[in-house]
Amino acid sequence: MPSASQSRKSQEKPREIMDAAEDYAKERYGVSSMIQSQEKPDRVLVRVNDLTVHKADEVVWVRARVHTSRAKGKQCFLVLRQQQFNVQALVAVGDHASKQMVKFAANINKESIVDVEGVVRKVNQKIGSCTQQDVELHVQKIYVISLAEPRLPLQLDDAVRPEVEGEEEGRATVNQDTRLDNRVIDLRTSTSQAVFHLQSGICHLFRETLIHKGFVEIQTPKIISAASEGGANVFTVSYFKNNAYLAQSPQLYKQMCICADFEKVFCIGPVFRAEDSNTHRHLTEFVGLDIEMAFNYHYHEVVEEIADTLVQIFKGLQKRFQTEIQTVNKQFPCEPFRFLEPTLRLDYCEALAMLREAGIEMGDEEDLSTPNEKLLGRLVKEKKQSNSYDMFMRGEEILSGAQRIHDPQLLTERALHHGIDLEKIKAYIDSFRFGAPPHAGGGIGLERVTMLFLGLHNVRQTSMFPRDPKRLTP
Amino acid sequence: MPSASQSRKSQEKPREIMDAAEDYAKERYGVSSMIQSQEKPDRVLVRVNDLTVHKADEVVWVRARVHTSRAKGKQCFLVLRQQQFNVQALVAVGDHASKQMVKFAANINKESIVDVEGVVRKVNQKIGSCTQQDVELHVQKIYVISLAEPRLPLQLDDAVRPEVEGEEEGRATVNQDTRLDNRVIDLRTSTSQAVFHLQSGICHLFRETLIHKGFVEIQTPKIISAASEGGANVFTVSYFKNNAYLAQSPQLYKQMCICADFEKVFCIGPVFRAEDSNTHRHLTEFVGLDIEMAFNYHYHEVVEEIADTLVQIFKGLQKRFQTEIQTVNKQFPCEPFRFLEPTLRLDYCEALAMLREAGIEMGDEEDLSTPNEKLLGRLVKEKKQSNSYDMFMRGEEILSGAQRIHDPQLLTERALHHGIDLEKIKAYIDSFRFGAPPHAGGGIGLERVTMLFLGLHNVRQTSMFPRDPKRLTP
Repeated sequence: MPSASQSRKSQEKPREIMDAAEDYAKERYGVSSMIQSQEKPDRVLVRVNDLTVHKADEVVWVRARVHTSRAKGKQCFLVLRQQQFNVQALVAVGDHASKQMVKFAANINKESIVDVEGVVRKVNQKIGSCTQQDVELHVQKIYVISLAEPRLPLQLDDAVRPEVEGEEEGRATVNQDTRLDNRVIDLRTSTSQAVFHLQSGICHLFRETLIHKGFVEIQTPKIISAASEGGANVFTVSYFKNNAYLAQSPQLYKQMCICADFEKVFCIGPVFRAEDSNTHRHLTEFVGLDIEMAFNYHYHEVVEEIADTLVQIFKGLQKRFQTEIQTVNKQFPCEPFRFLEPTLRLDYCEALAMLREAGIEMGDEEDLSTPNEKLLGRLVKEKKQSNSYDMFMRGEEILSGAQRIHDPQLLTERALHHGIDLEKIKAYIDSFRFGAPPHAGGGIGLERVTMLFLGLHNVRQTSMFPRDPKRLTP
Repeated sequence: MPSASQSRKSQEKPREIMDAAEDYAKERYGVSSMIQSQEKPDRVLVRVNDLTVHKADEVVWVRARVHTSRAKGKQCFLVLRQQQFNVQALVAVGDHASKQMVKFAANINKESIVDVEGVVRKVNQKIGSCTQQDVELHVQKIYVISLAEPRLPLQLDDAVRPEVEGEEEGRATVNQDTRLDNRVIDLRTSTSQAVFHLQSGICHLFRETLIHKGFVEIQTPKIISAASEGGANVFTVSYFKNNAYLAQSPQLYKQMCICADFEKVFCIGPVFRAEDSNTHRHLTEFVGLDIEMAFNYHYHEVVEEIADTLVQIFKGLQKRFQTEIQTVNKQFPCEPFRFLEPTLRLDYCEALAMLREAGIEMGDEEDLSTPNEKLLGRLVKEKKQSNSYDMFMRGEEILSGAQRIHDPQLLTERALHHGIDLEKIKAYIDSFRFGAPPHAGGGIGLERVTMLFLGLHNVRQTSMFPRDPKRLTP
């Protein structure tokens, strides 16, 4: 579907067109009946981003969305969109198209999906509004595959407009709740497509790097029997006749895998926090990219592996996702993300010395001017010389990790000190009773890393279907 | 830790040894103090599986677990284990070791982690009980890094013994509940190490194949606002002042991503089923490997992609995980997993013809002898000529998929027909109102695929920390 014979049957045309004079193009357009896998037409569909001058004068079939349409006398210009790419198409009265066909094309609702047959033509003047600037498609056939309803809840062009432009030129932009309420439409914009293609790349680079380093991917349970991290901010689940909880972190299970000799493990999965925080950086469900690793003598061995993993992710993104980065930047301009290889690392004493050199005494936090300096000041004040570490992007913390306690005796003492019910973490503590290597780890939030890498300002922009205390749909 | 100076301080030796005659080896053994990242000794630790004749006569350091120890006069034989690999080590009274040191080595509890310095020596007769059969380690120093408690809840050698051997020779095996109650120990066996290294490989091959095919990885929410699949078998979550539910499948969100133009998507994540089934193949939480894909004209385009993905996974496993497959086979012998490339595909008519050729009339299900025939008979009876498909491994279903309804009108009709409250799936149905391509998909359970590929008999063997109606720990 639609073969020529099939689409003839399925054409549904507005009455005024049907009633009009004989239409010599009547088989060349229409609304196809629903595709129900009844036929396998021998037709190759070409991708929009493959429509270049190399295909000039070829006849091609394309499936795309009607992004915009504009009728002008005996012509109708369509912009056909496919993910981040779009091309101009022209339906003009002539041998292939009747005036009825031009009218039909002009009346197709935006966002409808169409199958178009056309000739690729080189254009003399670049089409600045499309990604395919050097060609346009001269339409010979056009069938609606899936018709969109006429009133869109938001306009895609408004949804990619930079806020500054909206403010200065009084043009419409789309607010966040409207976007999230109509997420399926909002995700179609070039910006959203770019954000989530890049996010898929972060996961891929994270795993690619760690598997290369000899890590093993593990799957940790999300339903747990006890609120192991103290009971605050944990979601309760009805589990048959009892209660269970949603894991706030895979940490205990990552550690148990270390005790089970997996040595270097990672996992990617949902993390749940029942925290009533309505900020730009909190979600109640987010995706954790987690690492845990046995080390030989010093937790710095782990810090190096984590830091290098981040560097490999950043390098990979800059290399493989330049188009996506630039697409997002058009709507949300920001400084390019910068990092050092190896990463800049400061210990407590170095940070202290840097502050002193800058003439800043401890306690002078209010005098520090840049966010990075403020951060440094805060850290130096807060941190003792402990076996822990924080990592930052654009001055915001993305990872907090530490050497873990691998001695069951010390672990028991610390749990008691923190008032944790030992019975509830028995399986965890028991894991350390039969030999446990020293180990350390950490986790990053996928949404935060995506946000900070792209210089965005809200994790809801980098979560496909965000969950917060006030939002559970779509 | 432990440098020579450090370990001297930290040696803790049983009193009878300390009180005995001057010990000329006293600095060469002991229990190290806990590793707290205080030092960075300049020491290279060699991997056990790198201990081969190529290293003969070299002095090396190794960190490993004491798998077994056996004292014999002035000698003590240890088997040192690291994941799936082990090597024999010998502590013998001589220049490097005193009789006190031999006694110390002989008394180290099994499963303790030790740092050993030794000379790699070629052996004349292969050591059949170790993976490193051609060498042994002549110990010069031995320090306990993490001491195991003396009584293990299960013996690793019992845990890898084939059941037949246990029955015929009256030797101990370990039952499933004991294994799962002490999962961290059970996961250390060569069989478990092999199972979960291979499982990590399944995830890797799944993603590698799909990314190569142009799929995008998505993250779908696990907390949802409505029990969208009818309300049966769904876990309820307390969500601030309301109730929410745990997603029984990512299907609706995968489909919404198709409506949002991602075209080909996959996800790996937990799937929750509040089903009170206590069988060998049901878990209340399992890991779903899910695919969804827009197609052009026929859902067979999707079937082909899914089938090829499975073939690529099987080929990759057989190529990259031969050691693991053979390790599991030693304990659980089974026919090697076989498949065709491309996979064998039967449509309704072909299956019917096959049954008729075999002299089997529809309705004769009770006469069918093999599980595969029974399956075929059941399928032919159950299946109408619908746009759906099932996939099988070793005669067991692993995937059930279908072309989805992409028309909001038809979707509404079907939902009403099934008595689903439209208000609860409004966001989902609305996703199809603004143009939706035809699409299809499916999902497989990671634990089931691992189980069937390896010819195991219970999904609890292929879930690190399984969840069922009766088990929520560890």
